[in-house]
Amino acid sequence: MALIVSDPPARWSGTFTRNRVKAAPVQIGMERLRKGVPLSVILVNSGNANACTGERGVRDAQLLCREAAHLLGVPENQVIMASTGVIGHPLPLKRMKSALPTLVRNLGQSSLADVAQAIMTTDRYPKWEIIPVQGYPEIWVAGVVKGAGMISPSMATMLGFFFTNAGMPLSALHPITHQAVMNSFNRIKVDGDQSTNDTVLVLDNGAAHEGTPENRLKGAISYTLEKIMRSLAWKIVDNGEGVTKVVTIVVETAKTEEEARRIAESVGNSPLVKTAFYGEDPNWGRIMAAIGYAGAEINPEDIDILFDDVTLASKGHGTGKLAEQRAADVMKRHDYTVRIILRQGSSSYRIITSDLSAEYVKINADYRS
Amino acid sequence: MALIVSDPPARWSGTFTRNRVKAAPVQIGMERLRKGVPLSVILVNSGNANACTGERGVRDAQLLCREAAHLLGVPENQVIMASTGVIGHPLPLKRMKSALPTLVRNLGQSSLADVAQAIMTTDRYPKWEIIPVQGYPEIWVAGVVKGAGMISPSMATMLGFFFTNAGMPLSALHPITHQAVMNSFNRIKVDGDQSTNDTVLVLDNGAAHEGTPENRLKGAISYTLEKIMRSLAWKIVDNGEGVTKVVTIVVETAKTEEEARRIAESVGNSPLVKTAFYGEDPNWGRIMAAIGYAGAEINPEDIDILFDDVTLASKGHGTGKLAEQRAADVMKRHDYTVRIILRQGSSSYRIITSDLSAEYVKINADYRS
Repeated sequence: MALIVSDPPARWSGTFTRNRVKAAPVQIGMERLRKGVPLSVILVNSGNANACTGERGVRDAQLLCREAAHLLGVPENQVIMASTGVIGHPLPLKRMKSALPTLVRNLGQSSLADVAQAIMTTDRYPKWEIIPVQGYPEIWVAGVVKGAGMISPSMATMLGFFFTNAGMPLSALHPITHQAVMNSFNRIKVDGDQSTNDTVLVLDNGAAHEGTPENRLKGAISYTLEKIMRSLAWKIVDNGEGVTKVVTIVVETAKTEEEARRIAESVGNSPLVKTAFYGEDPNWGRIMAAIGYAGAEINPEDIDILFDDVTLASKGHGTGKLAEQRAADVMKRHDYTVRIILRQGSSSYRIITSDLSAEYVKINADYRS
Repeated sequence: MALIVSDPPARWSGTFTRNRVKAAPVQIGMERLRKGVPLSVILVNSGNANACTGERGVRDAQLLCREAAHLLGVPENQVIMASTGVIGHPLPLKRMKSALPTLVRNLGQSSLADVAQAIMTTDRYPKWEIIPVQGYPEIWVAGVVKGAGMISPSMATMLGFFFTNAGMPLSALHPITHQAVMNSFNRIKVDGDQSTNDTVLVLDNGAAHEGTPENRLKGAISYTLEKIMRSLAWKIVDNGEGVTKVVTIVVETAKTEEEARRIAESVGNSPLVKTAFYGEDPNWGRIMAAIGYAGAEINPEDIDILFDDVTLASKGHGTGKLAEQRAADVMKRHDYTVRIILRQGSSSYRIITSDLSAEYVKINADYRS
């Protein structure tokens, strides 16, 4: 468990999983976000998702929020929980309740790095960043995330907490948050599964600045938040269960952004493409097949496929043995970019995906045992 | 390579891949099917898909069809090809052409079992069946399929050839074929990929009967064809690359069949669910999560999940340790059924899926090397 406390209480925004099966802490968080009250405390636990636990799950989470509120002297509706772990088991309530006083006592002794460490589950390394907002030396944006498997657009099994002292009104904070999530955590894909617990929150305690920001500051915050979210999103894929390759899929010159997105996701989600990434096999035919079943208007005879700077297929045809050898060399890298050029229009889309490795299967087959 | 010859020429129906990237033989087959001319010869090859090979690929396939037509003394437009294998390489034309005379010489010496053997690629066993049509002792339906990976609704990387001597007119043969494919090959799922070469054909040489069949015969043929297709579809999943479990997913009491289908496919396609099948872990929480992101109207608090006769979750809640142990025993079986009861309406849907094993990854990472 970890406690994140904002003092003064923060204005906040956030996005939650779109899975119709929503964990108890997500239900509570969504309700409190809707009401627009400030946020003082996030109580984070791993090992138990508190999902599919019904009324009891909600009561348990509320009880822990109330307990934390009491210990910290803040209103109960300023406390939320964020949980990840196994679905369908009740929280170990007694144990969690009795751990709270120690957490409260030790408050203020932890850095963001400690929080990043505390919320890890199968993550391989802690993931956090702090970036000053350019042009505003007193303002910064910080973020910490966890998440390693079940990563898919519409948010991945992940928790992400972001902080700023910018003092934005909610009317600016909400759209900035949504756009940054859309361009970062909604564009990563490890296995296409979508969790019951995904949560990304942005807290603004306004310590550096208050009042409506001028447009230039708004733009600078938006830029910085998106930058930090993209960077941490990349690290989540890099930390994906059993991931040995991080591959950026860029679809260019599509008719519409929606078609570009569909193709990028079809390629980034294909087990045959992802096993070929793992096997370092420049099998562009599998990519072509995944483009073909994406449900977008394409003409195979117009398509180029590049691995970093190596053109592997040109106008729908392979470019030969030498190109395959050079692409195989690219694929030995830990991360690289697959570019798909459609020649249908002027829209593009980009996602981050991973390979599908034998280790992924092992980790997920053994997860609970 | 294998040659399948129908003498007399057959009326035929069929379905081809819906992938927009269609292999050359698929393009030719679709055109000939549209024209409604009878079919005399199917030339089958594996190892090379003749996909993404452009104009040259079409010319190569046409040349081989012409050559086979010439050797067999049938019109060129009564010959088609069916290919599977690597995408993006031209056919080894010379070698294939020079092998044709021997194939023609050996015609009539092979059984359906031999054909099933000849068209295998990574299949573990040959897949074929012959079933007499009940009530019509002189009429039979036979089928032979290959296909082991890249299996997904909208047809799987598979070839399937079905034969009958029923003498149906095309007006009966087409709808019977489509319905049988819809209820069999369009309901299997190994990895969600959809190939460029999928082909299922039904040939009716009319040797036993001619003219418009009465409704009872039509029903009997339809029943028999669907039965044989379902049986062979099951075997394709059982033969799936690296498959150790064959799992039937049945979604019941859904609001609409479309919602039932979406949920069945979401569960049957989830890497986390499939790795749990592999790990023999009764992790119903992952199933619940996959139900949740299927995009169907559900209420988690209404849902039951059963593994064969073991109720693992009731009204959205786990039923305890003992049930988990009993479900774990069910999961040790080679094949079993997962039933998902939604309590939303009266529609249902059923698909056949598999586990996702470490072997699958190994096979597909090494496929070309």
